[in-house]
Amino acid sequence: MRTAPLDIMIQEVAPRDGLQIEPKWVETGDKIRLINSLSTIGFGRIEVSSFVSPTAVPSLRDAAEVFAGIERRPGTIYTALVPNRRGAERALAARADELNFVMSASETHHRANMNMTHADSLASLAEIVKPAHEVGALVNATVATAFGCPFEGVQPFKKVLDIIKRYLDLGVDGITLADTTGMANPNQVSQLVAKTLIVLPADQLTLHFHNTRGLGLVNALSAYDTGARRFDAALGGLGGCPFAPGATGNVCTEDLVNLCHEIGLTTGLDLQRLIDLSFRLPGLVGHEVPGQVAKAGRPLDLHPIPERLRRSV
Amino acid sequence: MRTAPLDIMIQEVAPRDGLQIEPKWVETGDKIRLINSLSTIGFGRIEVSSFVSPTAVPSLRDAAEVFAGIERRPGTIYTALVPNRRGAERALAARADELNFVMSASETHHRANMNMTHADSLASLAEIVKPAHEVGALVNATVATAFGCPFEGVQPFKKVLDIIKRYLDLGVDGITLADTTGMANPNQVSQLVAKTLIVLPADQLTLHFHNTRGLGLVNALSAYDTGARRFDAALGGLGGCPFAPGATGNVCTEDLVNLCHEIGLTTGLDLQRLIDLSFRLPGLVGHEVPGQVAKAGRPLDLHPIPERLRRSV
Repeated sequence: MRTAPLDIMIQEVAPRDGLQIEPKWVETGDKIRLINSLSTIGFGRIEVSSFVSPTAVPSLRDAAEVFAGIERRPGTIYTALVPNRRGAERALAARADELNFVMSASETHHRANMNMTHADSLASLAEIVKPAHEVGALVNATVATAFGCPFEGVQPFKKVLDIIKRYLDLGVDGITLADTTGMANPNQVSQLVAKTLIVLPADQLTLHFHNTRGLGLVNALSAYDTGARRFDAALGGLGGCPFAPGATGNVCTEDLVNLCHEIGLTTGLDLQRLIDLSFRLPGLVGHEVPGQVAKAGRPLDLHPIPERLRRSV
Repeated sequence: MRTAPLDIMIQEVAPRDGLQIEPKWVETGDKIRLINSLSTIGFGRIEVSSFVSPTAVPSLRDAAEVFAGIERRPGTIYTALVPNRRGAERALAARADELNFVMSASETHHRANMNMTHADSLASLAEIVKPAHEVGALVNATVATAFGCPFEGVQPFKKVLDIIKRYLDLGVDGITLADTTGMANPNQVSQLVAKTLIVLPADQLTLHFHNTRGLGLVNALSAYDTGARRFDAALGGLGGCPFAPGATGNVCTEDLVNLCHEIGLTTGLDLQRLIDLSFRLPGLVGHEVPGQVAKAGRPLDLHPIPERLRRSV
C-alpha cells in the first residue's frame, strides 16, 4: 500500500515539552497511555521525554520507564531530549530512535538552562553522534532561543547560522530552530528560515514555536510559506515559559492541524481524534489547557438551527 | 503639527463586542472610564455600545448614558452598533459619530441574531443613511458571518460580494467583513479581501476577526498582506461566541498591536499603555481575559540575568 507524501509533518512534543513544566506529577502509566494514543493517531515523530537531571526536571524523571513502557508504532520516531553525553547514553540504553540535543543560541540562556558553555555542549555533541549512529539512532540538534533570548534579546541571524554550521559539521541528521520563549515574529521567521534552507534541506529542518505572545500559528504559517515543512506542536497547547506565568505554551497541535486542513494541507492526522485526546489533558495536568479548537469544535461542525426558526420556515 | 499616516488602523471594539456577551453587569461609570482611557491611548475609532433591544442585550442597555458620559477626543470616531431604524434614531440622538449597521450574510444567522430577514434589514438601512448623513454622521455596514455561519457553514464569496454591492448602492461610507464565530482561514480571507478591494478602497474596508479557533492574528496578517488596512480588535481579547463556550473572543488589541510593531507597522498606539489598561479588565468582567501579550510582556522586556550567573562572570 502506498501513501501520498504529506504536505506538512507535525511532530508531537506534549509528553516532553508540555509535561516538563507541569507542577503536578503525571503518573508514568498515564504518560505511557498518552504516548500510545498519540502513536495510534499516527504522528511521524513523538518527543517522549528528557534524559536530564531529575533534580532540574523532576516531572520527567521517569524517562527510562516511559520509553520501556510505550508501544512503538512502525514509522514513528520516538525522540528523547538530551543535554549531554550522559543523557545520550541513557537515551540510547532506553532505545530512543532519535536524540534531540539542545543548546541555546544565547550563551546566557544556555548557562541558565543547562549550566554549560557553548564549547562544553558542542564537545558533548561531538561525542554523541557516533555512538548514536552506531546503534542506528538519529541525532537532531536544536538551536534554542533562536529567535530571541529573555536575557539577551534578539539573537543575530549570523550567530544562529554559525551554530547550524557547527551542528552540520558534527554530522547531525536534523536541526530544530526553537522559539523557546515566544519572541519570534513572522518577518524574522521568514528571513531565518530562508537563510537556513540554503544550507539544509527542508526535510531536515524543524520549526518549534511557542504561543507565548499569541504568534505561534502566525509564525508557523510564515515558516511554511518560506519553505519549512516540519513543525513541533503540543496537544492542547501544553507547555509554558518560566518567564511568562499564565502565558500559553507550545503551539497547540490540534489548532495547527486545523489551520493546515483549512488551507488544504495534508497532515495525515485526524483532527477529531486529536480533539478527543486533548479533552483528556485537563484530567492529567489538573488545569485547563490553552488549545482553542478543542473548545470551539471544527469550523464545519455546524449547530442545529434554533427551534423557533425551524418552526417558522 | 503633521503626523505620518499610519500603516494600519486598529479600531477598538471591547466596549461593544467585548462587553456585549459578559454575564456580569459592568457599571455605566466603569464603561465610561474604560472608553475614556481608550480615547487617551489614541484609537481612531471606538465602538462604544449597541442600540439594540435591552432584552436581547441587557449588558449594553445603558448605551445612551455611556454616549452621554464619555469625553470625546478630537479625531476619534465614536461608533454605535444599530440593527434597524429605531436603533439608528437612538444612536443619532446620542450623538454617535458613526452608525454600524449589521446584517449576517447567512439569512439563518441573521434571523436567529436579529429576528429580521435580509429584505427587512436592507429596507432599514435604506432609511438610515440619509438622516445620518444629514447630521454629519457616517454609516458603516457590517457583513456578519462573512466567512462562515455556525448553522449554514461556509458562505459563498458571491453572496458576500452581492451584499457589499447592495450596501454601496445604499450609500454607506464603509464596510466591515466580520468573522463572527471564528470560522475564517487565511486563504479564504485573502481571496475575499482581494475581491472586495476591487470594488472598495482599503480605507473604507474593516476586517473584524474572532480568535475562536486561534486564527485571529493569522487571518489579520493574511488580510493585511492582501491589502486590508483597518482592523477591529478588543482589548484583552474580550468577547466570545455563544456557540463556543470557553473559546476566546475578538482578536486581542494588544496582541495585534504587538504583531504589527514586531513586523515594523505603525499603529499610533502605545503597547505598554494598552497592556496596563488590559490589566484592569479582569476587575471589570470578573474573570481572566485571553490576551497573551499582557501576560507575557513585550518581547524585548528582558529579564535580569540570574544572580548565580552574574556572580560567575
